[in-house]
Amino acid sequence: MTQAPDVVAAASGGASLADAVLAGDRRALARALTVVENRPRAAGPLVDALVGRTGRAAITGITGPPGVGKSTLVRALIGELRAVGETVGVICVDPSSTVTSGALLGDRVRMGGHHRDDGVFIRSMASRGQLGGLSAAAFSAALVMDAAGFDHVLVETVGVGQSELEVSGLADAVVLVLMPGSGDAMQFLKAGIMEIPSVIAVNKSDEPGADRFATELRRALAIAHPRSGLPRIVRTNGLTGDGVADLLGALADHRAERDGEEQRARRERALRDQALRGAVDLLRDRLAEAARRDPAVVAALEEVAARRVSPAGVARILADEVTTNGDGEA
Amino acid sequence: MTQAPDVVAAASGGASLADAVLAGDRRALARALTVVENRPRAAGPLVDALVGRTGRAAITGITGPPGVGKSTLVRALIGELRAVGETVGVICVDPSSTVTSGALLGDRVRMGGHHRDDGVFIRSMASRGQLGGLSAAAFSAALVMDAAGFDHVLVETVGVGQSELEVSGLADAVVLVLMPGSGDAMQFLKAGIMEIPSVIAVNKSDEPGADRFATELRRALAIAHPRSGLPRIVRTNGLTGDGVADLLGALADHRAERDGEEQRARRERALRDQALRGAVDLLRDRLAEAARRDPAVVAALEEVAARRVSPAGVARILADEVTTNGDGEA
Repeated sequence: MTQAPDVVAAASGGASLADAVLAGDRRALARALTVVENRPRAAGPLVDALVGRTGRAAITGITGPPGVGKSTLVRALIGELRAVGETVGVICVDPSSTVTSGALLGDRVRMGGHHRDDGVFIRSMASRGQLGGLSAAAFSAALVMDAAGFDHVLVETVGVGQSELEVSGLADAVVLVLMPGSGDAMQFLKAGIMEIPSVIAVNKSDEPGADRFATELRRALAIAHPRSGLPRIVRTNGLTGDGVADLLGALADHRAERDGEEQRARRERALRDQALRGAVDLLRDRLAEAARRDPAVVAALEEVAARRVSPAGVARILADEVTTNGDGEA
Repeated sequence: MTQAPDVVAAASGGASLADAVLAGDRRALARALTVVENRPRAAGPLVDALVGRTGRAAITGITGPPGVGKSTLVRALIGELRAVGETVGVICVDPSSTVTSGALLGDRVRMGGHHRDDGVFIRSMASRGQLGGLSAAAFSAALVMDAAGFDHVLVETVGVGQSELEVSGLADAVVLVLMPGSGDAMQFLKAGIMEIPSVIAVNKSDEPGADRFATELRRALAIAHPRSGLPRIVRTNGLTGDGVADLLGALADHRAERDGEEQRARRERALRDQALRGAVDLLRDRLAEAARRDPAVVAALEEVAARRVSPAGVARILADEVTTNGDGEA
């Protein structure tokens, strides 16, 4: 493997767009995000040209089930951060939406009062089937936002599963947004199926039972995870802005508690893991392609469908097949 | 690719254990399930030797958030099926548990009154990190149970995400178990993030609000998914057995509605998809191994960690690397 020339060649391809992004050009930023979302091949060189200028932004994942008011809370967070002069880039990952990228109208609506403010940039990314692909695109988008110089990058994802954590792998902190009555999410936390977030925001704090829910959540987590450092639980109201400053305070505390070395190691691991996931995504794509075109793979899959050989039995043959044909000839 | 000899050679390896499983030997079945869970390499030949005798069982996925009473409901289903003379194999997939396979005591406890009944066999599978690996093992386990001659195979999984659906990809029907107040799960269904199941069981039907919850669920689904065939919603009580016969009736209706061709196509697709997923799992393992040992891959990942190249930029190099070294030399 001759690695250095590849990297250099790759980096030069996206250089001019990258320069414009680094210079703060917002139209270039929009174009770069579109490349990242829609053109995986071009995204590599582009992000290569930007990645050396990343690592400065505070990246925060915002996750939680649908309907708890994540978008409203994000809008309130933007307002609070802008009030103290901090710039904010936002990536909204919406696996339920089939709207294509850009989603300009939606973005403008979501931006609320911030659509004439150069210190705020919001991009929605809709799912087109492959969750892995979306997660990779969101990861690259966070790097692009970071390189564009925003003080804060917020990555909003829907869900309580594992794929959401991949998206926020780059994040220094993850806020799980719940609301009074988020019973299933509490069960997932208790059962250890959901990773414990950095901070839990109990949103819609004006709804009945908010106090009791926060108390129950605290108690349930203390019993279920007696030895782990528990998240700070903050009551918020995205509509009125109540508690939003507290949430930012909790996030600042969280960053302060983690020393520089730990932070750096965590970020390096996230970058390495994402590279490996990206490679797996590519191999998956090659395999899907082979399943359509490669006669040997098509025949092997027919054997499986006819129950003459097991899925596990044929998997190794398929892996070797894509391995033999994937490189060199292409 | 010379495929036939591979398959034949593979099939002969697991033949004697397979013969015992096919003959109804329950100790052999237990051993076969352990192979499937703990020895992925040996699992291929074993399941190859069994897969020709699968396709007879009615396979049903049972999923839902923790705490809704899935296990109790499964026990009630077993009782109801045994009462009419049907045999039942159960696979409990528990990603939150770190208990190693077999989990004999737990299984016996879960079996309730059925632990001396040869017509019932229950196996728990605990997660050991890799969710992909667990899902593949559960899929193979369902095939083994099918080959062992059970009329019904129930695959119980915790969750409301996408990985649970992989596990139940082989299933002819999926029951989503909820309870009154499963607010987040309802939100996931409405948002289209959770796939619509074949049947929804509103369990713990004696809890206050069960009627209202079922009505709201029905209404929310009708509004959110106006054009899709909506699942039948059945109220159940796993503890008393109320509604369990209705649930079985709904499942039987579901099977009857789907014609033989559609059923067969669905099962063939599930087998093909699982083979491809298994190949991706293998490639992921090879890549993880390379990330530990292959100097070129280690160096590439260092470049990523140092932000000299982007994760997306290096992914292609990594994919090609595992591609070159994976086969032939091994």
